[in-house]
Amino acid sequence: MKILVLNAGSSSIKYQVFGMDEQQVLAGGLIDRIGEAGGEMASHHEALEQIIQRLQAAGIAGIDAIGHRVVHGGEHFKQPALIDAAVVDTIRAMIPLAPLHNPANLEGIEVAQRLFPGIPQVAVFDTAFHQTMPPVAFRYALPVELYQQHKVRRYGFHGTSHQYVAQQAAAYLQRDLADLNLITLHLGNGCSAAAIAGGKSIDTSMGMTPLEGLVMGTRCGDIDPALHFYLHRETGLSADDVESLFNKKSGLKGLCGVGDMREVQALADSGDTDAQLAEAMFAYRVKKYVGAYIAVLGRIDAVVFTGGIGEHSARIRAQVCANLQVFGVHPDLDRNTAHTAGILEFQQEAATLKLLVIPTNEELEIARSTARELLRRS
Amino acid sequence: MKILVLNAGSSSIKYQVFGMDEQQVLAGGLIDRIGEAGGEMASHHEALEQIIQRLQAAGIAGIDAIGHRVVHGGEHFKQPALIDAAVVDTIRAMIPLAPLHNPANLEGIEVAQRLFPGIPQVAVFDTAFHQTMPPVAFRYALPVELYQQHKVRRYGFHGTSHQYVAQQAAAYLQRDLADLNLITLHLGNGCSAAAIAGGKSIDTSMGMTPLEGLVMGTRCGDIDPALHFYLHRETGLSADDVESLFNKKSGLKGLCGVGDMREVQALADSGDTDAQLAEAMFAYRVKKYVGAYIAVLGRIDAVVFTGGIGEHSARIRAQVCANLQVFGVHPDLDRNTAHTAGILEFQQEAATLKLLVIPTNEELEIARSTARELLRRS
Ligand SMILES: Nc1ncnc2c1ncn2[C@@H]1O[C@H](COP(=O)(O)OP(=O)(O)O)[C@@H](O)[C@H]1O
Ligand SMILES: Nc1ncnc2c1ncn2[C@@H]1O[C@H](COP(=O)(O)OP(=O)(O)O)[C@@H](O)[C@H]1O
Repeated sequence: MKILVLNAGSSSIKYQVFGMDEQQVLAGGLIDRIGEAGGEMASHHEALEQIIQRLQAAGIAGIDAIGHRVVHGGEHFKQPALIDAAVVDTIRAMIPLAPLHNPANLEGIEVAQRLFPGIPQVAVFDTAFHQTMPPVAFRYALPVELYQQHKVRRYGFHGTSHQYVAQQAAAYLQRDLADLNLITLHLGNGCSAAAIAGGKSIDTSMGMTPLEGLVMGTRCGDIDPALHFYLHRETGLSADDVESLFNKKSGLKGLCGVGDMREVQALADSGDTDAQLAEAMFAYRVKKYVGAYIAVLGRIDAVVFTGGIGEHSARIRAQVCANLQVFGVHPDLDRNTAHTAGILEFQQEAATLKLLVIPTNEELEIARSTARELLRRS
Repeated sequence: MKILVLNAGSSSIKYQVFGMDEQQVLAGGLIDRIGEAGGEMASHHEALEQIIQRLQAAGIAGIDAIGHRVVHGGEHFKQPALIDAAVVDTIRAMIPLAPLHNPANLEGIEVAQRLFPGIPQVAVFDTAFHQTMPPVAFRYALPVELYQQHKVRRYGFHGTSHQYVAQQAAAYLQRDLADLNLITLHLGNGCSAAAIAGGKSIDTSMGMTPLEGLVMGTRCGDIDPALHFYLHRETGLSADDVESLFNKKSGLKGLCGVGDMREVQALADSGDTDAQLAEAMFAYRVKKYVGAYIAVLGRIDAVVFTGGIGEHSARIRAQVCANLQVFGVHPDLDRNTAHTAGILEFQQEAATLKLLVIPTNEELEIARSTARELLRRS
């Protein structure tokens, strides 16, 4: 079985084709700057035609199914969904919750329906894995009408990644996922932590939107909810200005001018105190979530690091794990630093609490979810 | 030495006179509805004249000093301050940070200066105790200019209470405060948690304003910073509406209609599922802060409960402490429930981590701080 995975953004489409028997990538790539001046493709339609040509040129024929990444599934989608008209309508109805992402994801779906008529397509949602959260974790302390009438609640994101690394952790540890309590840390440009009990997400740091929680590349994460009003009064910034400030000019970039962790660390090493603070705050805030999630999980078997920073920055991992002996966190700093690629286990020999680095693979998880959904339906 | 402690709000003045030799309350009371229709007093001036008459009637003469509660001391006040013109100006300059509180506190100071000429007066700030927080805890991941030019940072509040119960805990445990790591939980109408290392606050849950952090009576505490934009788009609420919604109609009240924990619990017991959720969320969010603060403190000697809920609700204490054995938290549920008044120690016999209930006394701490400041100056 061959599955094409599509991740359509507002001006880009990422694609990968998986051969599911060996779970291997047969082809993959990115078309970006769609519809932009100087870009090669005028529309998502053109871009997908181009992708089809590339696949043909690579000798790949007979796509059996298409898996689409969709950011927001609201409360409706707790699982991947075989796409039909009703599913498309529901994804459309979720646009107010993800005004930047869902329209682009939908465009990808509609173009693919036209260009691959008759091929089953499955939507895989970033939010779905977190739909197991209990109300104590997903509700905000806001008037109940805001939840009932306006769907205001914590949804959480990066669900495909958290789910994937949780499964990989269980496989690696040769344990049943149902018996494991895990904290998974997806630290990339966007960052989120999840508390996973027996394979089910019970809490996560992103909220109604991907702005809440950890310090990210350009997003602020947790702040005082009264800041908006103060900024408005003191600076006269409009709501739109503040929204863009919090999303695009904050996080690491706001603290020290650069949003990419490698650049932050290079600056910090050169003696830049703002960058030193940015790096330290990033780790400090991850550490607080680790403590909070151990408190709600009661006990944990492993902490799993993933995403660009989680997979590649030994020094962030070391900072997050420092001084947590009381929790049973005992990193072996040599093992941690020696890591280059693949799965790593870096707790000390005698420690029972595992510290793992597991490369994420959201595309593979979307392909697997697509295959599982087709099987379930057949 | 006799010290008059004044806590001036926008329409009320609370007062207490302490005899400092025995640290006892000689008189105290409240004048409220100042300037309101149907209230007895037209102004803070009239109210304070009334207080002076009451003190005379009670045979209390010779006030040696006055201690004022002031909510926001910004970064300027790390200690109580003997009030002079410069201090008044600095408190005034802090009004944008606490637009509801500092003007009322200032009015109390100015009226007291007129009515008690020549008597030394000291300002004691809710924020001062938290000024020891390091930048990783007090900064937000926002553009550095917002901190430098607009003083946007975490300040924390309830400092007088956290400091008081921390000192009481050390005295009760017969330990040096400098050797103790504590988590103090002030759970009243407003709620905040603090991480205290060797007597110094290193992190706290309230932020730039008292809106951040735990679920409170009517305040939302932590939410997604993108919620404001969504609410504005979906409901058309103005910034002022949203500010009042988050401050006055959220928290326990937003979740179940009542903001007083006793009423929440009564409703919960009668089977109201919204109230059951409100109570459970309240405890769940405290628990997350406990975990987060253990993570940043590395180890703790005691968790201290104070404030109306912390002191009087054994069942909230039990919920907060449940399932935290991994941290060494072992509540003795009988001791916890048997408590009526005063200081309580309710960990199990064999546990080294102490669980304490310590009644707060912000007025006494203000009187003590006032006396210390005079001594330091003399
Ligand atoms: N060796 C490294 N050390 C530190 N940070 C790294 C390293 N490699 C990648 N990163 C960081 O990972 C982040 C990107 O993560 P990634 O998961 O690739 O992004 P995205 O969230 O967009 O998928 C960037 O901040 C980048 O600097
Ligand atoms: N026995 C009790 N059980 C539960 N909650 C209580 C109890 N006694 C007082 N409270 C709660 O304490 C809160 C008030 O706390 P308090 O510290 O007195 O207020 P403030 O923060 O205004 O000083 C209210 O929610 C009240 O219901």
